[in-house]
Amino acid sequence: MERRTFLSGAALVGVGGALAAPAIAQERKTITIVSTWPRDFPGLGLSAQRLAARITELSEGRLTTEYFAAGERVGAFDVFDEVAAGNSQAYIGADYYFTGKHPSFAYFTSVPFGMTTPEWNAWIKYSGGQELWDELSGSFGLKAIPCGSTGTQAGGWFNKEINSPEDLKGLKMRIPGLGGQVMAKLGVSTVSLPGGQIYENLVSGAIEASEWVGPYNDYFMKFYEAAKYYYTAGVHEPGGGLAFSMNKDFYEGLSDWEKAIIRSACIEEHANAHEEGMALNGVYLKKLIDEHGVQVRDFNDDIWDAFGDASAEVFEETRAHSDLAARIDDSFQAALRQIGGTMDKFEYTFVRQRNRVLGLT
Amino acid sequence: MERRTFLSGAALVGVGGALAAPAIAQERKTITIVSTWPRDFPGLGLSAQRLAARITELSEGRLTTEYFAAGERVGAFDVFDEVAAGNSQAYIGADYYFTGKHPSFAYFTSVPFGMTTPEWNAWIKYSGGQELWDELSGSFGLKAIPCGSTGTQAGGWFNKEINSPEDLKGLKMRIPGLGGQVMAKLGVSTVSLPGGQIYENLVSGAIEASEWVGPYNDYFMKFYEAAKYYYTAGVHEPGGGLAFSMNKDFYEGLSDWEKAIIRSACIEEHANAHEEGMALNGVYLKKLIDEHGVQVRDFNDDIWDAFGDASAEVFEETRAHSDLAARIDDSFQAALRQIGGTMDKFEYTFVRQRNRVLGLT
Repeated sequence: MERRTFLSGAALVGVGGALAAPAIAQERKTITIVSTWPRDFPGLGLSAQRLAARITELSEGRLTTEYFAAGERVGAFDVFDEVAAGNSQAYIGADYYFTGKHPSFAYFTSVPFGMTTPEWNAWIKYSGGQELWDELSGSFGLKAIPCGSTGTQAGGWFNKEINSPEDLKGLKMRIPGLGGQVMAKLGVSTVSLPGGQIYENLVSGAIEASEWVGPYNDYFMKFYEAAKYYYTAGVHEPGGGLAFSMNKDFYEGLSDWEKAIIRSACIEEHANAHEEGMALNGVYLKKLIDEHGVQVRDFNDDIWDAFGDASAEVFEETRAHSDLAARIDDSFQAALRQIGGTMDKFEYTFVRQRNRVLGLT
Repeated sequence: MERRTFLSGAALVGVGGALAAPAIAQERKTITIVSTWPRDFPGLGLSAQRLAARITELSEGRLTTEYFAAGERVGAFDVFDEVAAGNSQAYIGADYYFTGKHPSFAYFTSVPFGMTTPEWNAWIKYSGGQELWDELSGSFGLKAIPCGSTGTQAGGWFNKEINSPEDLKGLKMRIPGLGGQVMAKLGVSTVSLPGGQIYENLVSGAIEASEWVGPYNDYFMKFYEAAKYYYTAGVHEPGGGLAFSMNKDFYEGLSDWEKAIIRSACIEEHANAHEEGMALNGVYLKKLIDEHGVQVRDFNDDIWDAFGDASAEVFEETRAHSDLAARIDDSFQAALRQIGGTMDKFEYTFVRQRNRVLGLT
């Protein structure tokens, strides 16, 4: 076994080989992170907390994070202003909560009839998505990178069966972002509520339906107490990602190494969150059915066709907001067709054939 | 703007807050990495080189990597013995090249009728896959983690159309791993060759067909000069991942921080490689068709049914090797059905409906 051993006298050698380096190498910064998720929330909340701890770990405390769950420092929907103003250095959350600032933030979480998480990742990293996100977030004094994903979200919880687009009319539903606008086109009365407030509204009857995430995350929300029908794939959030969004001045003041540590931690957690959900969704779907009598349903083709028409209208309206909004939609729709169309020839063809032959449907 | 600033006197404060810490913090190690990919090879080779550089960058040189492409220190297929013996510290490559050591290594790259990359990631990280990989690799003195992925691979390059299982009989094809065994069941005469040797064998007629990766990686191989028919999804490598496989004694001698840096870099590159391929496959498929007259074909249902039967036989034979082989197959097949079956309700249902409504097929 020939293994390299190292460095007696290492204490005298700085990173750049110079004696002055240790002083630089041990500079410490604190990153105050505010979040849109409740403390210790299974899935989303735990993922955000893991990320905060990982940045501290990878940097050996030279980037020490302090993490505030929703409401601990500011409210869930106040994190954007908190970080844009520089009062905290970063938020973890879903950028589509901030479509009131600019409708195009939706594309940087998930949009109806959009991309799955792997497709969205390919757009963000390798097909121009990050550059547009930088332009959008930068105009508000922010710099965001992907950090966490749920995969394709469930259609949601309903207190009645939805057998045609007609059944959606007049329904009071919690569904944010452009997905909410699609539902509104179909006559749904939509509201956007942070996760911690959905249960009480559903139980009180203030809302009759809600989407949240998928079986693993949803299990802990107890929505089945008020809404027994659980719909599989929804149109509203096919994938995409969450944001680790930093104050732009803070970000630009980071060294290349500090930026690399943050990016690596975020991309690692982005993958972990997605894959943890994939591994646990089947386990928790079974528990929902067996323990709580949840009734699982699919939206039928008529409903999907209606979703398609409504989504096209929503994209047109979003594009009309501004030149930037149109450019983001152009880039997104082109990537969807290029990446999704090519995956249809490879991954999706394989999955169709495998699931057909093995009976995995 | 309230931003935290720090650090007068930081030069005196080590990572643990103790004066002794800087000596530890600046210990340096060199990781010699050998690879199964040629130098500067688009896709796989560039990914491996990025990973090596990223470990050095994230660790600020305290883990300095030196990278040897295939043939620069040892041959592509000799990396396993090189690292197991401790002559180098790690290899980057596809563990299914080493089914001669143990047939179950195939599961830790990709197996026919197996999992896509996201599904495989969920198995490795959250459904028991890593523990079995550790048991298998550990018995050879290695510790492997995921590092790079191609997504679902193309069916491959053929010098004639394949319209029925009969057309495969007697064909000489480069296809390694269990996928090669599936093809052998169908009468194909299979060989395993490293990437750098395929072209010459195809042009000389020593082989009549070869799989490699997908449009982006394959474009640079020029296989179309000898085989014009390019098949979309193949059965043999639906996804999975490549390995960053370390000498186990070396790994166990690493600090927790060093392990964290290596893992974070590997998981980041695992995602990047997959998503880069997804973004570029469509671009390069178009170039293959437009510039080189490549004819794109799908395997039909009869061929997929034959693939299914042959795969089931191959799994049975692999299981019979040993108790460990049977346990790995048990875990893999259960995860495939649990994760793949649940994804069918969510992600794949969405994709089917989206691609139907948008005409993305």
